[in-house]
Amino acid sequence: MLPADDALFNTFDVESNLNGMKINKPTLVVDLDRVEANIRRMATKMQDNGLIFRPHFKTHQSHFIARIFRKYGVEKCTVSSVSMAAYFAQDGWTDITIAFPANVLEAEEMNDLAARIQLNILVDSVEKVNLLASRISASVTLFIEVDTGYFRSGIFHENVDEMAKIIDAIISFRYFTFAGFLSHTGNTYSQSSAQNIVQLFDESRRKLSDLKRHFSPKYSDIVLSMGDTPAASLAEKFDGIDEMRPGNFVFYDLMQLSLGSCRDTNIGVAVYCPVVAIYPERNELVIYGGAVHLSKEKTTWKQREIYGLVSFPTSDGFGIPMKEAFVSGLSQEHGIVSMPAHELEKIKLGDILAVFPVHSCLTADLNSHLLSLDGDRIEKYRTY
Amino acid sequence: MLPADDALFNTFDVESNLNGMKINKPTLVVDLDRVEANIRRMATKMQDNGLIFRPHFKTHQSHFIARIFRKYGVEKCTVSSVSMAAYFAQDGWTDITIAFPANVLEAEEMNDLAARIQLNILVDSVEKVNLLASRISASVTLFIEVDTGYFRSGIFHENVDEMAKIIDAIISFRYFTFAGFLSHTGNTYSQSSAQNIVQLFDESRRKLSDLKRHFSPKYSDIVLSMGDTPAASLAEKFDGIDEMRPGNFVFYDLMQLSLGSCRDTNIGVAVYCPVVAIYPERNELVIYGGAVHLSKEKTTWKQREIYGLVSFPTSDGFGIPMKEAFVSGLSQEHGIVSMPAHELEKIKLGDILAVFPVHSCLTADLNSHLLSLDGDRIEKYRTY
Repeated sequence: MLPADDALFNTFDVESNLNGMKINKPTLVVDLDRVEANIRRMATKMQDNGLIFRPHFKTHQSHFIARIFRKYGVEKCTVSSVSMAAYFAQDGWTDITIAFPANVLEAEEMNDLAARIQLNILVDSVEKVNLLASRISASVTLFIEVDTGYFRSGIFHENVDEMAKIIDAIISFRYFTFAGFLSHTGNTYSQSSAQNIVQLFDESRRKLSDLKRHFSPKYSDIVLSMGDTPAASLAEKFDGIDEMRPGNFVFYDLMQLSLGSCRDTNIGVAVYCPVVAIYPERNELVIYGGAVHLSKEKTTWKQREIYGLVSFPTSDGFGIPMKEAFVSGLSQEHGIVSMPAHELEKIKLGDILAVFPVHSCLTADLNSHLLSLDGDRIEKYRTY
Repeated sequence: MLPADDALFNTFDVESNLNGMKINKPTLVVDLDRVEANIRRMATKMQDNGLIFRPHFKTHQSHFIARIFRKYGVEKCTVSSVSMAAYFAQDGWTDITIAFPANVLEAEEMNDLAARIQLNILVDSVEKVNLLASRISASVTLFIEVDTGYFRSGIFHENVDEMAKIIDAIISFRYFTFAGFLSHTGNTYSQSSAQNIVQLFDESRRKLSDLKRHFSPKYSDIVLSMGDTPAASLAEKFDGIDEMRPGNFVFYDLMQLSLGSCRDTNIGVAVYCPVVAIYPERNELVIYGGAVHLSKEKTTWKQREIYGLVSFPTSDGFGIPMKEAFVSGLSQEHGIVSMPAHELEKIKLGDILAVFPVHSCLTADLNSHLLSLDGDRIEKYRTY
C-alpha cells in the first residue's frame, strides 16, 4: 500500500464528517441551530426586560440570518453603514438605525433611503446637524450619540449645554425629528471580568438616564439606546434604558468567550480549513486559511496571542475546540496551527479543521457567503 | 453665514483636489505612475542581475495591474491560491507558480489549469507528492519548498536526504517534472535594519545554492527561486539565484517604509476616507474607514502601534504623510486618527483624508476594486 492510500482514506473519512458539505478551500460555516438559539435567548431576554430589541446586523450582514430574527418578533435593526442599510431595506426592513457618525457625503443615498423607510442616524455636533440640514430632503430621525467613556465617537456625556444646542438645531429643521440618546459602551470589551463589564454598563446606563431626566421636561418620548454584546449577555438590569443594539451575539466568538459572554458551544461560525502541511518536528501544521479568511484580529489566550482555536469537525457540527491547539500565526493565505504531538499525529494532509474566529464580525465580513452544516449556501452583503 | 456653509465650502475645495474622483466612502485609490515606476525599477533590477522575474500577484490581484508588468517583458507570475491562478490564466498568463503548499483537495481545479497552462506547484514531503500523484492527471512542474529559517512552510534546508526521496517520488510519476528549490525568506520582515535584511537574504541564498550544488550532478537545470520584497528591494547581489518572486513592491506600504525598502513617495495605494467626526478636546478625529477597509495589521511607528499614516490629498495625488498624525484605532468601520491641534484645526467634516496602509496586500484584498487618480475604476479579483 502506498502511503498516499492511508492519507486519502483519512481524508474521505473526514469528508463523511462534513455531512455532504463540499469543502476544499477556506469556508465560513454556520451552525444555524446555535444561531437561532442565540437569537431566541437574546430576544427573550430583551422582551422580558421590556426593551426594544434592535439587533446590529453588521455581524452577519445576511438577509437569510436577518429573517431568523423576524421569527422572534424583531422588526427594527441596526447597521454600520449607509450601504448596509440599503442592503437590508431591500429585504423589507423598514426601521433602520445607522449606528455610525452620519457621513454628510452620503446625503443623497440617505435621502433615497429616508424616502422609503424610517431612517435613524447619529449626530454629535451642531455643525453636523447644519451640514445634514443643507443636504437632507426627506424625513429622518436623529439620535445624539453620547460618549460615556469609550472615546470613539459621540459627544462627551458631561457636555449637557452643547447637547441642548444640538437638540435646538435638530428641531429647527423640518425634516428632522429628535429621537433621544444613543451610546455604544465599547469599553466593556477591555474589562477583565464579567462583574466589571456589568459595572461599566451600569455606570453608562446611569449617565444616559441622567440625560433623559435632564431633557425630559422639555422633550417627550426620549429614547435611550445602548449597545454591545458583552453587556447585553451579562447584565441583568436594564432599568432606564429603552433599547438595546447588540450584534455579535448572533455568532459570538473567542473574544466573547474570553470575556465570559458565551460558552464555546454558543459559537455559531467557524472557518473550515484544509490541512496543507504538517511539521511534527515543530509541533505545527499549516492550514489553507490566512488573514484574508480570518482577519488579523488576535486575542490573548493562556498567555499567548492567538488568531483562533481549532477543532475536528464531527457529523454534528464544529466539535469541541482542542485545549492546547492555537492558530499562532497568519500570513495572507497561510495559517500556522500549534498543537501537542498527541493531537498532531491524528491529522493527515487533506483533513479539514474548524477554526473558531477571534472576532466573528471581521471574519464574516471577509467571506462572500456562509455555508450551513447541511451544505446550503447562504448569501450575504459584502463591504463595498 | 451658517456654520454649515464654511464647512461645505471646504468640502468642495477638497473635492477639487480629487481630480474628478467621486469619493463619498472609503475607497482604495492607486497612483498608477508610482505603480509603473515601481514595476519598471524592479524589472530593470531583475533583468540587470540576469534573474527570471516572476512577480507575486497576490498584492494587487488585478488583471489591469498585471498588464503593466507585460509592458516590461514579464511573462511569468506567482500567486497564492489555485483560484487566483485561474483568475490570471483567464487573462492570458500561461506560466504561473502557486507559491503555497499544494492543496490536495483542489486537485481537480489544478488539473483544469494544468491542461491549459504551465502550472508550477510546491511540495515538501513524499506524502504530499504521492497524494498529488493519485489525483493529478495533467503535466505539472513541482518545486520543493525549502524552509531556510522562517518556519512557516517548506522542508528544513538541512534535510537533504529527505529531499532526495522527494525528488525520487516526483520523477517516478509521469505527469510530474522536478523544477528546483523555492523559498520565501519571510523572516526578512522581522529584521531591524536594511543591513540585517540583506545579510539574512545572503544566508538563505547560500543555503539554497548549497542544495543546487548537491543535487546538480544528478539533476540538470535546477531552478532556485526566492521571494520577498525587502530583499528584492535592498539586496544588490543575487549570485546563484535564478528567479525572484517579490510582490508587495508594486504598491509598497508602511511596513516596507519602516524596513527601509521604499520611500513614502513610492507608496502606490492609499485609502481615501471621509472625515465624519472631529474631537479637538481629544486631538482626534473619526474617519469612515475601519478594519474592513484597512485590515487590522498594525506596525510600530515612533514607539506607537499604528494602523496607518494620514495625508491631505492634493490635485497631484496622495500628498505627503503628516509627521504626527496616526490611525491609532480601528473598529469595523470607524478609524480613529490622532493628530496635533495645528493639523486638526485645518480639517472639516466631509473632508477626505488619504490613509497609507500598513500592509497593502491585506488592504487591497479587502477592496472590490481600485480607483485611479483620474477616477477610472480598476477591477480586481476578490478572495472567494
